[in-house]
Amino acid sequence: MSRLLNVVIIAALVGISPVRAEAQTDVLPSWNNGSAKQTIIRFVERLTTAGGQDYVPPAERIAVFDNDGTLWSEKPFYFQLAFALDRVKALAPKHPEWKEKQPFKAVLEGDIKSVLAGGEHALLEIVMATHAGMTTAAFEQTVSEWVSTARHPKTKRRYTEMVYQPMLDLLAYLRANDFKTYVVSGGGIEFMRPWVERVYGIPPEQVIGSSIKVKFEIRESGPVLLRLPEIDFIDDKAGKPVGIHKFIGRRPVLAFGNSDGDHQMLQWTAAGSGLRLMGLVHHTDAEREWAYDRESSVGRLDKALAEARARNWTIVDMKRDWKFIYPSEKK
Amino acid sequence: MSRLLNVVIIAALVGISPVRAEAQTDVLPSWNNGSAKQTIIRFVERLTTAGGQDYVPPAERIAVFDNDGTLWSEKPFYFQLAFALDRVKALAPKHPEWKEKQPFKAVLEGDIKSVLAGGEHALLEIVMATHAGMTTAAFEQTVSEWVSTARHPKTKRRYTEMVYQPMLDLLAYLRANDFKTYVVSGGGIEFMRPWVERVYGIPPEQVIGSSIKVKFEIRESGPVLLRLPEIDFIDDKAGKPVGIHKFIGRRPVLAFGNSDGDHQMLQWTAAGSGLRLMGLVHHTDAEREWAYDRESSVGRLDKALAEARARNWTIVDMKRDWKFIYPSEKK
Repeated sequence: MSRLLNVVIIAALVGISPVRAEAQTDVLPSWNNGSAKQTIIRFVERLTTAGGQDYVPPAERIAVFDNDGTLWSEKPFYFQLAFALDRVKALAPKHPEWKEKQPFKAVLEGDIKSVLAGGEHALLEIVMATHAGMTTAAFEQTVSEWVSTARHPKTKRRYTEMVYQPMLDLLAYLRANDFKTYVVSGGGIEFMRPWVERVYGIPPEQVIGSSIKVKFEIRESGPVLLRLPEIDFIDDKAGKPVGIHKFIGRRPVLAFGNSDGDHQMLQWTAAGSGLRLMGLVHHTDAEREWAYDRESSVGRLDKALAEARARNWTIVDMKRDWKFIYPSEKK
Repeated sequence: MSRLLNVVIIAALVGISPVRAEAQTDVLPSWNNGSAKQTIIRFVERLTTAGGQDYVPPAERIAVFDNDGTLWSEKPFYFQLAFALDRVKALAPKHPEWKEKQPFKAVLEGDIKSVLAGGEHALLEIVMATHAGMTTAAFEQTVSEWVSTARHPKTKRRYTEMVYQPMLDLLAYLRANDFKTYVVSGGGIEFMRPWVERVYGIPPEQVIGSSIKVKFEIRESGPVLLRLPEIDFIDDKAGKPVGIHKFIGRRPVLAFGNSDGDHQMLQWTAAGSGLRLMGLVHHTDAEREWAYDRESSVGRLDKALAEARARNWTIVDMKRDWKFIYPSEKK
């Protein structure tokens, strides 16, 4: 019989849970000791102490996390845009007209500045050309292949290696305390689902994101779901509380974001009765990651930061609060 | 120490799970012995036998159930319509114009035939007038009150007492085998969420249904979500596989319905690789419930029944297969 099983049985006999028996170990090992770490641990302990006035039953322990800039990096631009640009290049042989047609011409010439200068309209054209027109199964396959091969231009790491180790710690700590962890991202729901389970331990049904419309069709080979070039839902800003309500139907007790796109999600979480934790990852580490807030076009953090300070939400200072940034540094 | 705890510890010591230790008891006590019951049990056993060729890990054991006519009754018309008609009556004092305006006039005069004769357009007007224009919190409160007080015109039971005991057995049996059970209904998602956890043991985040749009708004009292008179998503027919994909992102291994509105959901489930179970509740019991299929406007079962017979899906004959219909009969 394993030693673990022994511990479990002995714990059951004396009426304590093994989690508590090990409470002396560091539950957030990649976090420096500081107010952010202490606030999180105190929050979880108060919320899970049976009989305490802040106790919340497991079914209601909903924790939501933004993705870009909160669970993984988002510079020099959202990783999903890198995927879309790579797809334009891969699909170009089938679209000879793209050589003369913007914004595709700029993408193929590697002129990212012009692409971004095209604004939302240019990006939407690129997204629709690369994210629609195939079955859901084919798109999932394409994302999986890209994620396992593409590398970030600056770090040369795979994108899924640029997730934040302290946030992985936090997700695991919350789940060990019977929280249900969700991703609530402005990014595409189907761009995340193929890899979030492996990388974050979050199953596909706990991912909320932006989506395009999908249509059921019976083909000779059988039924398929076809991705259409039409926006279904934008899970950003005021869309985030809407997405949370739509998919979960309960108000979270904890929400973590990093930008003004997460502001309303934090407000919605804060407005619930009882103990809540609202957190912001503040990108302050130009050396180990990036440093940006008010002036950044990607991941701008301005109004949410002001409200966080005014209302005493938890602001995580990456440079000060995190022992490691990426998993590779931990080894 | 309780006897149950004893059993658990002894089971752990000898390396068996308590579930297996009790495998001799009847796992579906409200089902008569017959091919439907046997098919279900054999399916669950094959799917959960570690090392077997049909084994599916717990994370992928997704089971979806239609609601109206599959988990509770739907006659003489969908229970949500009864709710909407009651709401028209309750709201009438604030809408004096309804006395002269169809379809509200007919509702207030108790002339349901005329209401139904107005078709989809009339029903949509009634739904929008009664389901939109309030906050999500206020709507939830209204549904909860209605569900705890309203009674069915024929049985005089509360609507939530008209759920099918054999399906409650099935939901519990699946969950005991680590299936994740979902409702996938053409009915309103927010009409179901307030009571499905108590009645079916299914949490709000595992409910998929039709929805109207919702808008985030900051009021003086704080942020609210406002229900708008605009369709967001119709979770019926070809919408069901779309809803499953949107909310779950995995293909179910088991799907149960009772009408042609569930046909595409069953086709989508059947098209997955590996062992699957597609089930139809066939309403054959005019004495204990209702008997209807091809000719019924509510819950019409025609094409799905033909495909079920052709492809050997599991057809549950209520009269023959179910020992009890409603929970009250079991006592």
